[in-house]
Amino acid sequence: MRISELSNNIKEKKSYLCLGLDTDIEKIPEFLLNFEDPVFEFNKSLIDRLHSKIIAVKINTAFYEARGVEGWSSLEKTIKYINDKYPKLFTIADAKRADIGNTSSMYAKAFFEKMNFDSVTVSPYMGEDSVSEFLKYEDKYVIILALTSNKGAKDFQIPNNNYLDVISKSKSWNNFEKIMYVIGATKTEYFKKIRKIIPESFLLIPGVGSQGGDINDVIQSSTSTSNNIIINISRAIIYASSKENYLDKAEDVVDNYNNLINS
Amino acid sequence: MRISELSNNIKEKKSYLCLGLDTDIEKIPEFLLNFEDPVFEFNKSLIDRLHSKIIAVKINTAFYEARGVEGWSSLEKTIKYINDKYPKLFTIADAKRADIGNTSSMYAKAFFEKMNFDSVTVSPYMGEDSVSEFLKYEDKYVIILALTSNKGAKDFQIPNNNYLDVISKSKSWNNFEKIMYVIGATKTEYFKKIRKIIPESFLLIPGVGSQGGDINDVIQSSTSTSNNIIINISRAIIYASSKENYLDKAEDVVDNYNNLINS
Repeated sequence: MRISELSNNIKEKKSYLCLGLDTDIEKIPEFLLNFEDPVFEFNKSLIDRLHSKIIAVKINTAFYEARGVEGWSSLEKTIKYINDKYPKLFTIADAKRADIGNTSSMYAKAFFEKMNFDSVTVSPYMGEDSVSEFLKYEDKYVIILALTSNKGAKDFQIPNNNYLDVISKSKSWNNFEKIMYVIGATKTEYFKKIRKIIPESFLLIPGVGSQGGDINDVIQSSTSTSNNIIINISRAIIYASSKENYLDKAEDVVDNYNNLINS
Repeated sequence: MRISELSNNIKEKKSYLCLGLDTDIEKIPEFLLNFEDPVFEFNKSLIDRLHSKIIAVKINTAFYEARGVEGWSSLEKTIKYINDKYPKLFTIADAKRADIGNTSSMYAKAFFEKMNFDSVTVSPYMGEDSVSEFLKYEDKYVIILALTSNKGAKDFQIPNNNYLDVISKSKSWNNFEKIMYVIGATKTEYFKKIRKIIPESFLLIPGVGSQGGDINDVIQSSTSTSNNIIINISRAIIYASSKENYLDKAEDVVDNYNNLINS
């Protein structure tokens, strides 16, 4: 997907919302366990219900890997379903990969070729040559961890302003226009500094909902003038109810967030 | 596996060598493509031939993910084969994972419960709570990226001595005795500083062979007094020959490295 399409979708749908599919088979409504692939059924039903009200879908690979081959199969089915039926949804493999170039090129193959995700999250710790293999693909994006939503961000990201160093250095990398950044919703006091360096870049903002980030605060702080933020919400939407009415409840949560975004 | 067993195996086998299975289906001898699972057959044959001369096996997940469900199945078969037949080999999932706690616990489930690896490599960028979930398992180990073998180490690891900060801070974490560190073989000039902080910790040292690190240099610099290093070699062993004699050639390479280690 081209980045201009993503911006257009945001404008048209009046939403920054990304549906986070952190699907845990132990937390989905019980009746789904009768299906051959309960996790895929759950994901499919959520996407079918919410697709017109969201602009992106983020799939958290950990939850699929925990179930081995079966889980990886649910992952592949889910991304294929989105690509076939809703190609306008921007897709994110939340995989937090990166390794030496020779290995990163294999991860890029997995997520961009084999599964055709639009983007993948990567950890910056190993530097430029661990990210550059992902940046070689046309119309594919790399979302670099800059300042994450968790407590541990204070350990190595905030000291020495390392998160700013990650952002500044990556600005000079080839294909910088394909880089987006993860900035946690719980860290809005840092948004201004970040936007000074990368006013135009897309930010993927997790941490609203179960992790405690406030969506009003995020929107006010991200000072987006050009529809360049993606706000991810996972658990607060997908586990809005553990009963048969989970889709209605999930939609209520999405509507509520979209109202807050547009108010 | 207990860490004392690993040290004992190193003493008994007189080897620090870890076999790195970065198995690319496009690089294995052609005749193997007739098997149902060529990658597993290749891995199995190497392990059968080399098990008595190595102390560990490292499986690089990227190469398996690039082939989707099929690849993940080769991965599961390989680790199961080692656990069943050679339980004394220390196994490393070279996965470079880590995320918020809720997600890291799923990665831990994948690698420690579902597949029963002895250890997994993790990226430190997201801090303590992204690593702690892995450290809750008995007799399982976390190998934190500190100073990697690639060029990009100069981007965010070496500035501000961030790699030393990673090592120092992680020393104060709960279950520190289960932490090992990745230190690249191409960075031997830093070993002394590192050993001052963590004289007893195991170091996983990649970068010998195709990446240009020198094994003599590594052994002299790592100043190991207690058999606490693991030297990984991947491509130089597994692709020693692309012909039917690949096992003989791989064994020659291993013998050669073991001779250098013991000279």
